[in-house]
Amino acid sequence: MKQFITIDDFEDVNFAIKETLNLKNNYLNNKKYYKNTNRTLGMIFFNPSLRTRLSTQKAAHNIGLKTMIMNFSNEAWALEFENGTKMSGLRSEHIKEAAAVISEYCDMLAIRAFASLNNKEKDESEVVIKSFLKYSKIPIINMESATAHPLQALADAITIIENKSKKRPKVLLTWAPHPKALPQAVPNSFVKIMKHMDVELSITQPKEFELNPIITKDIKLYHNQSEAFKDVDFVYAKNWSSYKNYGHISKGNDDWIINKEKMNLTNDAKFMHCLPIRRNIVASDEVLDNKNSLVIKQAENRIYSAQYVIEKLLKNE
Amino acid sequence: MKQFITIDDFEDVNFAIKETLNLKNNYLNNKKYYKNTNRTLGMIFFNPSLRTRLSTQKAAHNIGLKTMIMNFSNEAWALEFENGTKMSGLRSEHIKEAAAVISEYCDMLAIRAFASLNNKEKDESEVVIKSFLKYSKIPIINMESATAHPLQALADAITIIENKSKKRPKVLLTWAPHPKALPQAVPNSFVKIMKHMDVELSITQPKEFELNPIITKDIKLYHNQSEAFKDVDFVYAKNWSSYKNYGHISKGNDDWIINKEKMNLTNDAKFMHCLPIRRNIVASDEVLDNKNSLVIKQAENRIYSAQYVIEKLLKNE
Amino acid sequence: MKQFITIDDFEDVNFAIKETLNLKNNYLNNKKYYKNTNRTLGMIFFNPSLRTRLSTQKAAHNIGLKTMIMNFSNEAWALEFENGTKMSGLRSEHIKEAAAVISEYCDMLAIRAFASLNNKEKDESEVVIKSFLKYSKIPIINMESATAHPLQALADAITIIENKSKKRPKVLLTWAPHPKALPQAVPNSFVKIMKHMDVELSITQPKEFELNPIITKDIKLYHNQSEAFKDVDFVYAKNWSSYKNYGHISKGNDDWIINKEKMNLTNDAKFMHCLPIRRNIVASDEVLDNKNSLVIKQAENRIYSAQYVIEKLLKNE
Repeated sequence: MKQFITIDDFEDVNFAIKETLNLKNNYLNNKKYYKNTNRTLGMIFFNPSLRTRLSTQKAAHNIGLKTMIMNFSNEAWALEFENGTKMSGLRSEHIKEAAAVISEYCDMLAIRAFASLNNKEKDESEVVIKSFLKYSKIPIINMESATAHPLQALADAITIIENKSKKRPKVLLTWAPHPKALPQAVPNSFVKIMKHMDVELSITQPKEFELNPIITKDIKLYHNQSEAFKDVDFVYAKNWSSYKNYGHISKGNDDWIINKEKMNLTNDAKFMHCLPIRRNIVASDEVLDNKNSLVIKQAENRIYSAQYVIEKLLKNE
Repeated sequence: MKQFITIDDFEDVNFAIKETLNLKNNYLNNKKYYKNTNRTLGMIFFNPSLRTRLSTQKAAHNIGLKTMIMNFSNEAWALEFENGTKMSGLRSEHIKEAAAVISEYCDMLAIRAFASLNNKEKDESEVVIKSFLKYSKIPIINMESATAHPLQALADAITIIENKSKKRPKVLLTWAPHPKALPQAVPNSFVKIMKHMDVELSITQPKEFELNPIITKDIKLYHNQSEAFKDVDFVYAKNWSSYKNYGHISKGNDDWIINKEKMNLTNDAKFMHCLPIRRNIVASDEVLDNKNSLVIKQAENRIYSAQYVIEKLLKNE
Repeated sequence: MKQFITIDDFEDVNFAIKETLNLKNNYLNNKKYYKNTNRTLGMIFFNPSLRTRLSTQKAAHNIGLKTMIMNFSNEAWALEFENGTKMSGLRSEHIKEAAAVISEYCDMLAIRAFASLNNKEKDESEVVIKSFLKYSKIPIINMESATAHPLQALADAITIIENKSKKRPKVLLTWAPHPKALPQAVPNSFVKIMKHMDVELSITQPKEFELNPIITKDIKLYHNQSEAFKDVDFVYAKNWSSYKNYGHISKGNDDWIINKEKMNLTNDAKFMHCLPIRRNIVASDEVLDNKNSLVIKQAENRIYSAQYVIEKLLKNE
C-alpha cells in the first residue's frame, strides 16, 4: 500500500479488518523495531480535531514513530492549490513547494481537510489531499478529506465485529438532525466499508438527503425512519447536508433525532456515531448514556485503525 | 492519590513537600522505568500558559512520559458542560464524550481552565475540571482551575523551605495592583498550603479584596499594608479581583505596588510571585531585579512539583 | 560557540560549511549520545513557519533531543521588551522573566521573530532576539530575526557547494517582485555567507531597493537585471522591501520576475529561493518546475544546517 485515501486503497478490505483486530491485541509489538528507524509522521490540520489528532499521535507513539503536528490554518503559510495562477493574493505558498518540502522532513504525512460544502465539483475532486498526493514523495494518510474518512470507517468496522451477536447483523445508517451543514465524508466511508462486510446494510434519510447514488447503489433506502429501525442490530447515526442540493440543510426534520422510542423498535441495537455528537439534537441523552452505545469504543478503535494503516505504509505492503 | 485538584488531595501535605524536595535531587532517577511503560500525559489548555506548559512537559520528559498537547479553544470542538441541554448552539461536543475519549488515548490528563470571574457559583463549582473528573477514567491534574493552582502552591512551598533562614518564618501574602480582573486561584492555593507549614502567615489587602473567608479563616488580615510588611521574612505578592463583589476591580489602589520602601520595612524579606508579573504595576523593577527575588526559582520548582504529582499518580500511591 | 544569531557567530565560516556537509552524510551518528543527556530544545515562534519549524524539529529528532514548541502570539502571554515601563497595557509578561524561566526548562532556545518593517532602528537593534540573549542563561538560535536568517544561509551555502560545476561559480542575488513588504533578513545573511565563499557574487535590484550598504560593500551591484544575469551559474531570487525608504514597496517592477527568458541569459544557471515563493510573481512556473531549480534541495539542507548548529551549541565548541 502506497497511500491511504479511501477504503479502496486496501487491496483486501476484510483482510485489513482482520489484521487491525489482530494488531489491537499486540499493539506494542513493533514499537522497538520502528523506534530504531528514526521515522517521522507529519500531521497537518486544516480543521479542528480531537479524536483523530490524539488517536493518530497515540498510534505513532505505540510504534515508536516521532510526530510533527501543524495547524496549517494559523501556523504556516496560506496555500495555493490552483496551477498557473499569478499568486498575488493572500496565498503565499504553492502546494507544489509545500508538499515537496514536507516530504524532505517527514516519512509519511497525514492530512485533515474538510469539504467546503459550497463547491461539489471541487470537493469531489479532493483538491487538497490529491494535491498533496501528487506533489509529495511520501505516503499520504487521509484524516478526513472532503468525501472520505476511511480511518473512521475501519474503526467502525472492527467495532461492529467486536460487538455483533450474529453472523450477519442488520446495520442501519440513519440520517439525524444538525444545526450546521456537515460533510458526507463519514457516511460515504461507512457505506463503502460495510459493503465489503457480511452485514445487511440499509440507509434511512429524509427525501432531500440521499447520499451520492454511486456510493449507495444496491443499498436499501428508507424515507420512513421508524420502518427502517425495525429489527436492526446496529444503528449508525450521522447528520450530513444535502448531496443533490449540495451543502444545503433544510429545517423541519428535528423529529429524526435518535431516541429511546426509536431504539425500542430495533433488535436491542447497538448505537454508533463517529463523534463529536450534539446531544438531544442528533441523539437523546438516553440513547448516548445507554449501555448499548458504542461511541467510546469506536473512538478507542481509532488508535488501532490508524496504527494498522501507518504500519502498512511503513512496510510498504 | 487518584487525582490532583487541590492541595487537599495530598493525604499528608508536609510529606508531599518533603518528597518533592527529595525528587529535585534525583529527578532523572525514574526515567527509564516509566519510559518502558508507554504512558502518555494529555495536556489541555483553555487559557494561555508559559511556565505551566513548559514545566509540565519538562517533568514528563524527565520521567520518559509522552505528552499530547492541545489548545482546546482553537484546535478542538467547543465543549458543552451543561447536562440535558439541546446542543443547538455553538458547542458541538459534550464533555461526557470528550472526557471519555481522551481517557482512551491518555493515561493521565492535565487541564488549565481559568475562572470566568463573572459567575461565582459556577466558578466555585469548578465546572470544567470537575466535569473532566466525573467523566474521565484517568487521573486528572489541575494546571490552574477557577479556584485553585496547587502545582504552583507546591512549588512555592518548596521554594520557601529552600530559602528560609529561620525555623518558622513570617510569610506575608500581599495584594498588589493590576489593570485587569484576575482569579483567586493562586492566593487560595498558597494560603491553603501555608496553613500546613511551619510558618506565620498573614495577609494584607484593601478592604474590598478579602479572599474567601473560609480559606482565610484564622489568618491575621491587615488592611494597612505597611504595617503588614513589618519584620516579615517572605513577601508573596499577587493581584486578585474582588471575591465578595465577584470579579470586580476597583481603581485607586495603585499605591499597593510592592516597592523598595516597603521591602525595607521587612526582615530583609525574600520576594515571591507566581508570574507573569506586570513590572512597575505589581512590583517595581528594583524589587524584581533584587537578589532577594525568588520568582525564577519558583518557576524552576514548577518542574519538580509537576513531576512529583505525575509520579504519584502513575504509582497510584 | 555560545549562540547563533548571525553567520558571524561561526569562528570559521568555511569550516562550518565543510562540517555541515560532513554531518549530512552521518546525520544519525550522534543520536544515541544526546538522547541520553535528557536535553530539550525550546522553539518559539512569533511568526508563521513551515520549513524552519519542521526542519529544526527534524534536526532535534535526529540527535535525540526533545523539543517544546510554542506559538508565542496566541499560546503564551504578550511580551514587554521595554525596560522601566509601567506595564499597564496589553503586555502582561516582561522579557526578563520570560527569558529567565524558559532557561530553567530548556537547554537551548530557538526563536523566530520577523522584522516589523516600520521601525528601522528597532529592527536593526534586534530587540526580540537580543533581549532573549540578554536575559536567558541558555544558547539562543536565530530561526529568522529582523535582520538575519543564518540557518537559511548555511543551508544555501552547502546547496551551492553540492551543485556547483566549477571551482569559483558566479552567484547572482536578484531582487524579485512581491505584493507585500518583506524583510531583508534572507538576502542579508545570504550575502554575508557568500562573502566568505569562493564565489563571484553580484546583486541586482531596482534603484530604490539597495540593501544595507554596509552589508553589500565591495559587491558588484546592477540596476539592469538582464545585464546581471549574463553568464551567471546560480540565480538566487528574493524579494525585499526598501532599506533606505524603510519597509516601503514600490509598484511597477513586475517585470523583475525571474522567467525562462532571463534564465536563458545565464550559464545554464541553477535557480535558488528560500521559500515560500509566489509563483508567477517572483518566478515563473517554468523556472520553478525546471530541473535546474534547487529550491527543494535548499529546504532539505535546512535539516543539516539546524542540526550542525544545535550540535555545536550542545558541545559548546
